[in-house]
Amino acid sequence: MPGALDLAGIFVFAVSGALAAVQKRLDVVGMVVLAEITALGGGILRDVVIGAVPPAAFTSVGYVLVPLLATAIVFFWHPQVTRIMPTVMLFDAAGLGLFCVTGAIKALDYHLSPLHAVLLGVITAVGGGILRDMMSGQIPSVLYDRQLYALPSLVGATVATLLWQEGLHGASVSAGAALLAFGLRVAAMRWNWRTPRARGVRD
Amino acid sequence: MPGALDLAGIFVFAVSGALAAVQKRLDVVGMVVLAEITALGGGILRDVVIGAVPPAAFTSVGYVLVPLLATAIVFFWHPQVTRIMPTVMLFDAAGLGLFCVTGAIKALDYHLSPLHAVLLGVITAVGGGILRDMMSGQIPSVLYDRQLYALPSLVGATVATLLWQEGLHGASVSAGAALLAFGLRVAAMRWNWRTPRARGVRD
Amino acid sequence: MPGALDLAGIFVFAVSGALAAVQKRLDVVGMVVLAEITALGGGILRDVVIGAVPPAAFTSVGYVLVPLLATAIVFFWHPQVTRIMPTVMLFDAAGLGLFCVTGAIKALDYHLSPLHAVLLGVITAVGGGILRDMMSGQIPSVLYDRQLYALPSLVGATVATLLWQEGLHGASVSAGAALLAFGLRVAAMRWNWRTPRARGVRD
Repeated sequence: MPGALDLAGIFVFAVSGALAAVQKRLDVVGMVVLAEITALGGGILRDVVIGAVPPAAFTSVGYVLVPLLATAIVFFWHPQVTRIMPTVMLFDAAGLGLFCVTGAIKALDYHLSPLHAVLLGVITAVGGGILRDMMSGQIPSVLYDRQLYALPSLVGATVATLLWQEGLHGASVSAGAALLAFGLRVAAMRWNWRTPRARGVRD
Repeated sequence: MPGALDLAGIFVFAVSGALAAVQKRLDVVGMVVLAEITALGGGILRDVVIGAVPPAAFTSVGYVLVPLLATAIVFFWHPQVTRIMPTVMLFDAAGLGLFCVTGAIKALDYHLSPLHAVLLGVITAVGGGILRDMMSGQIPSVLYDRQLYALPSLVGATVATLLWQEGLHGASVSAGAALLAFGLRVAAMRWNWRTPRARGVRD
Repeated sequence: MPGALDLAGIFVFAVSGALAAVQKRLDVVGMVVLAEITALGGGILRDVVIGAVPPAAFTSVGYVLVPLLATAIVFFWHPQVTRIMPTVMLFDAAGLGLFCVTGAIKALDYHLSPLHAVLLGVITAVGGGILRDMMSGQIPSVLYDRQLYALPSLVGATVATLLWQEGLHGASVSAGAALLAFGLRVAAMRWNWRTPRARGVRD
């Protein structure tokens, strides 16, 4: 996976964090913190769990600077960014696809079991958004909004893990799994697929 | 401590997490996440702190699967599970007793001081519930509901630590300390023992 | 940095945690938990990230006992403590100055880059307060209240890092950087300096 793709995923997640801060009327400190935590939180959780410390976010300068750039853009042009929100969500889906795959593969590189690699792929993809929502004073949207968000990342992480176990380790294999998760996420948005609540819990 | 007991404690904590998700009207993703974090969160915090990475939850397949089983049961039969809530609370007390002792002993095995072993025993026992409540958008109940929940785990962890320091390391010793914490918790529920608020803060 | 200063910073942060618990009408367990997490949370986050495990809070007995002392004082005399709140805020500013500098220097000792050392200095200084607010069911005040709180710690951590890179490692250098952050924080309180919201977001 080229670093440019990684930075692109971080950028998009950071935009969503900074926008959440604007919607909550936080100040510029809140914007920076939510941008950084949304973009880097999932990967930090993964790296702390697998013992890859300092986490990548604390060894790469770019990982810290890109969310600052996203914050600056949202600071000045948040009305315009909000207007192109459907496009932002498309990039967010790309970040989701990318992170679930790179997260799972890094866990496999650290000798975790396939099941735990899948779990860490999902944590990498959705962990930052969960932390963003917890710091914004709301229940993480992935836990209740019934959109297919975690599930595409589960599929992408599972496929990447199974292929890795078959000895298929290349960038094109990773790209395929990421594209699958991306496509599922986009399809879920397009046709409004929903996850169920427990049996008998009404709408 | 046999693994079966550990898995039983994880199962009961996971049930409480999945039920909290149903009460908050979360979807099935929220149920799975709260079940996993309630059951495994305390142990993960402990393992990250003592440097036992990957944490046990990320090396054992059963630790991840048991909360999924608990989620499935709550998904289909949550009205019935809610009806037997007093029994669930009894098992929760057993999980509390078990986790405070195993948490303290694992910290001692990692050469932490007795004081810190006690602290980590309590974190193992109550940490998952605190994370569950924080992710459900509420103040952790252990911080305000004035029930004796943390205190029995403090007693159990302290007794386990003192006996361990006296060279008493066996399973029966651990079982005794866990039973003490369990008994205290059950007595606190039975006779409605309360923890105080700061002096002068009214009911 | 002498240990006494460190313990003084921990004490003041713990007082703010215990007071937050009283204001939220939490019980004594909530007071202890918020006192400990406010005082130790930032340093624990830093140590987990840089791989200094167990974190200092879990190897020093004093670090755990001082917040208990703070809790006891607040338990009995919280009306008096609230009355001298301006003085408490002065000591809090001292803790902020101290922690941003010691946090940055510890990160440099663990071979992190200057940028990441600054980041970890800020996390050490403000992380405990963020966790306190998240556990109290509110958005972290540092994210929205527009006070200059994070910014003085950023300045202090940056100056300490730059001096350290110039080979200036002594206690008096650290004290100077901490005093600068302290002075900025006090000036921000005195003249009510504010951080901005995103462009166009009204008061």
